[in-house]
Amino acid sequence: MKLLEDRILRDGVVKGGNILKVDSFLNHQIDVHLYDEIGKELYRLFKNEPVTKVLTIESSGIGLAVAAAREFGVPALFAKKNRTKNIDGEVYSSAVESFTTGITYTIIVSKHFLGPQDHVLIVDDFLANGNALLGLIEIVEQSHASLVGCGIAIEKGFQSGGKTIREKGIRVESLAIIDKMDENGIVFRPQ
Amino acid sequence: MKLLEDRILRDGVVKGGNILKVDSFLNHQIDVHLYDEIGKELYRLFKNEPVTKVLTIESSGIGLAVAAAREFGVPALFAKKNRTKNIDGEVYSSAVESFTTGITYTIIVSKHFLGPQDHVLIVDDFLANGNALLGLIEIVEQSHASLVGCGIAIEKGFQSGGKTIREKGIRVESLAIIDKMDENGIVFRPQ
Repeated sequence: MKLLEDRILRDGVVKGGNILKVDSFLNHQIDVHLYDEIGKELYRLFKNEPVTKVLTIESSGIGLAVAAAREFGVPALFAKKNRTKNIDGEVYSSAVESFTTGITYTIIVSKHFLGPQDHVLIVDDFLANGNALLGLIEIVEQSHASLVGCGIAIEKGFQSGGKTIREKGIRVESLAIIDKMDENGIVFRPQ
Repeated sequence: MKLLEDRILRDGVVKGGNILKVDSFLNHQIDVHLYDEIGKELYRLFKNEPVTKVLTIESSGIGLAVAAAREFGVPALFAKKNRTKNIDGEVYSSAVESFTTGITYTIIVSKHFLGPQDHVLIVDDFLANGNALLGLIEIVEQSHASLVGCGIAIEKGFQSGGKTIREKGIRVESLAIIDKMDENGIVFRPQ
């Protein structure tokens, strides 16, 4: 997606430790117009699927999931990272280790909102080692819903997550795939 | 806002401990159409203000902030609850105690995205004891931005947050204010 790649080149900042900072437009400050265009692109890619829910994980995925869900005309649903008093005991759950913090947490989704009748598109802002996505995929499996695929804004193609998930036979569409990034710049995979 | 009040009456569940569960449409599963209507109503209420940023706090506020920001044609910005490797050292910060978990955490906003030139509308899904909102207000004060006001989906009028913040001279617009809720039902404040 050229609009996203151009924005990453213009405003993304490469840091050590394989960190790409895109917090001026994607995951701290949010360019709402860009979110809408990402939602439209995910719809274009998955519009032939009978999507009934767009699933993501808090926090950075929420706005993107809402943007995609609007295009499909279905609810968005976000997995929560901790059990709070506001969540019923009836939940699907999975353990996820965060790439950015190193902390392992439990993600949960209420059983009320996902079941065998659902066709789920998973959306997230980043795909790196794939841990968050694998946790969401496990939750979809627990619910016996059909997994339509995964729609990702930015995939770090030099990390293993995308390969792992595609080798499971799951469709992964990443709107920008970074094959290499360092102090000399960012190289995208041709799409 | 009648659409929101009707939805709370239809799908909200009152639990003990002053908990109102609205996780089927507002803060776990998301009705995207309702979010859009809330965004439009917040625009209607604050459209005469020169809003440059819509500020919220992760996670449940993000989708609503994006919906409002779309109407104003400005960026959304969400405060993060923990310091991760992806946030610069240059941040505004405030301590907030969560009503739902009882945990005190630090919320942070990068200094890159908020400054004296900004006119900020704060948006959140709930206003109860006001702790989250007071933390966001403190961050706006640290940035020397102008605070336009606060736009809230659901205010628990029987808790002290709304009174505390309005007594500071800050404009608070809540789209549904609950004066009473128990096993017999929910009573909204006439607006």
